[in-house]
Amino acid sequence: MLEHYYALIMAGGGGTRLWPLSRTDRPKQMLKLLGEHSMFELAVDRLKLLFPPERILVVTSAAYAGQLRAQRPELPEENFILEPEPRNTAPAIGLAAVSIHRRDPEATMACVTADHFIGNERRFRDLLVAGAEIAAQDYLVTLGIQPTFASTGYGYIQRGEALGQAGDFPFFRAVRFKEKPREPEAEAMLADGLHSWNSGMFVWRVERVLQEFARLMPDLRQVLAEIEAAPEALEKVWGRAPRQSIDYGIMEGAAAAGAVAVIPAEGLNWSDIGTWDALLAVLPPDAAGNVVVGAEHLAIDSSGLLIHASRSQPRLVATIGLSDLVVIDTPDALLVCPRERVQEVRAVVDALKKGRTEYL
Amino acid sequence: MLEHYYALIMAGGGGTRLWPLSRTDRPKQMLKLLGEHSMFELAVDRLKLLFPPERILVVTSAAYAGQLRAQRPELPEENFILEPEPRNTAPAIGLAAVSIHRRDPEATMACVTADHFIGNERRFRDLLVAGAEIAAQDYLVTLGIQPTFASTGYGYIQRGEALGQAGDFPFFRAVRFKEKPREPEAEAMLADGLHSWNSGMFVWRVERVLQEFARLMPDLRQVLAEIEAAPEALEKVWGRAPRQSIDYGIMEGAAAAGAVAVIPAEGLNWSDIGTWDALLAVLPPDAAGNVVVGAEHLAIDSSGLLIHASRSQPRLVATIGLSDLVVIDTPDALLVCPRERVQEVRAVVDALKKGRTEYL
Repeated sequence: MLEHYYALIMAGGGGTRLWPLSRTDRPKQMLKLLGEHSMFELAVDRLKLLFPPERILVVTSAAYAGQLRAQRPELPEENFILEPEPRNTAPAIGLAAVSIHRRDPEATMACVTADHFIGNERRFRDLLVAGAEIAAQDYLVTLGIQPTFASTGYGYIQRGEALGQAGDFPFFRAVRFKEKPREPEAEAMLADGLHSWNSGMFVWRVERVLQEFARLMPDLRQVLAEIEAAPEALEKVWGRAPRQSIDYGIMEGAAAAGAVAVIPAEGLNWSDIGTWDALLAVLPPDAAGNVVVGAEHLAIDSSGLLIHASRSQPRLVATIGLSDLVVIDTPDALLVCPRERVQEVRAVVDALKKGRTEYL
Repeated sequence: MLEHYYALIMAGGGGTRLWPLSRTDRPKQMLKLLGEHSMFELAVDRLKLLFPPERILVVTSAAYAGQLRAQRPELPEENFILEPEPRNTAPAIGLAAVSIHRRDPEATMACVTADHFIGNERRFRDLLVAGAEIAAQDYLVTLGIQPTFASTGYGYIQRGEALGQAGDFPFFRAVRFKEKPREPEAEAMLADGLHSWNSGMFVWRVERVLQEFARLMPDLRQVLAEIEAAPEALEKVWGRAPRQSIDYGIMEGAAAAGAVAVIPAEGLNWSDIGTWDALLAVLPPDAAGNVVVGAEHLAIDSSGLLIHASRSQPRLVATIGLSDLVVIDTPDALLVCPRERVQEVRAVVDALKKGRTEYL
């Protein structure tokens, strides 16, 4: 079965939540957040033990394609599927699905993210294998993450009846998708033991998901059919693709029909690294209790710091008497902020929009 | 009288108290601490309204001469007096004194520092004029600074009887020099109203100070006489010059003989900028309450910060929720430190000496 298994890396996202490192033309997936390799490079590399390069595809916007290709030139050029413009995840995944379907009508595809941290890569590959096994039973499979705190930043998936076991992983019928909740609801979902975080990663047979596109998003399915019939029509018809997320456009409706399975994955050491303090949560601290990436840190009476300096030249950062701060150093901009206020990076970005757009 | 008046800028000091900006080969006088101009450039420029370039001399070590000349090429090359190696201030000033004496036996010289902040430059020039007037009465004149707090980092000068008035400035006999005191003594000296800080700046007739060299440091006077007779002998005889400060070697003994006058100068807005927080004391804060040099600062809920980034390229520093920190940004090193702990920069420098000397 695995010879018909394809991986699709969704690498079209933008965003500047990790400013000053992330910029408009250099979103999170391109960044060397963890040191030597970019998030995209890590996403490719963790798939390589399971998928040959010919079956690793990337969907991204035309604007990012050049940089991403340069980061992993071993992927065939035709495996980069380019959205003429970003129209959210449902059209992007649909476009990739028809592209894979043209190559291999029997294909199963895993849709994975390009910009998330996954600490336990071996378990991640086991999870993808389990996902393919469940997808073979015609479920749309969503990879859930066992919640470790009452996050209000993630979406949640509620599980219903147990459906079986695939490898190490029990799986369940998914009965409800819940977008970012308020805190009381997040607390309740954490406490009831019935919810997983929505990782935004999915596995399904391509023919099966295209059936759901036809049922739930017929306008998009029509656009995709035109592209499948005549790929050169892409630019012309793309503007008719509805701007919609895969969760809202497909998964919710499919779950209502009982067609979605969720694997509540534990032990992945997963994070979407939505804000700088997430690196403090997932990376091991050094002997002084600080997380240091890309810099030499001279710490005097300092702990709980994130020091991040992905620079081409050597960089020494000396701190005296500091705790629980993030220091993010880039060639043209520096951010210093208490770790509990990293959400306010958004306010910095908003301020820059009013006249300092060269730093965005 | 002013046509025989010479200014000597003492620019031989080393030191790395303002690390990471100051380095072994780039001491404080060479730094653009205040923005556009180096401390040495500012020292020259504030003298220019009183002294023509031909009568502005610089004594420095051979190692620094090239950089200093490049910073103020309008000074005649022969006005740079080069110590073959640093041997503290008494030999340096003595060397300059005999050099000036060869040019002009009637000379009066003002010895001024190259690396201090002087906010009120007009008053400083008035003070130098007053100093020359008092020096004409054969006093060795020391420029005192009216203390504004009980500093334990400065030397103090105790004044005795009033000797007169020169311009705006009353002056007094200096009766005691006191090195950096402990805190109770500093408090007492601040309270008694009889003490000035020792600025390390002096005015005297050259013949008069050479008499004191002969009386109090005869070995040094002998070395200087040999250099005066045969300047090419400098390299050969310099090693015999005793390593001694002018305060200890000359001023204390001269004061004991009643030969020293002190001008307790007020209103200069003077600082030796011994540590980074001194810039917070002397430079005006911006509307948000921060002192920013060489950077663009985007402050969110931040005050009491010193942001210093003397870089060739534009630099944005964003801070969120911070107060009373110094952030010193240089091309290869960054320091972040609470303003009340800037003394511990010394500890950083000490740590670097044990294996990271490229940052010294």
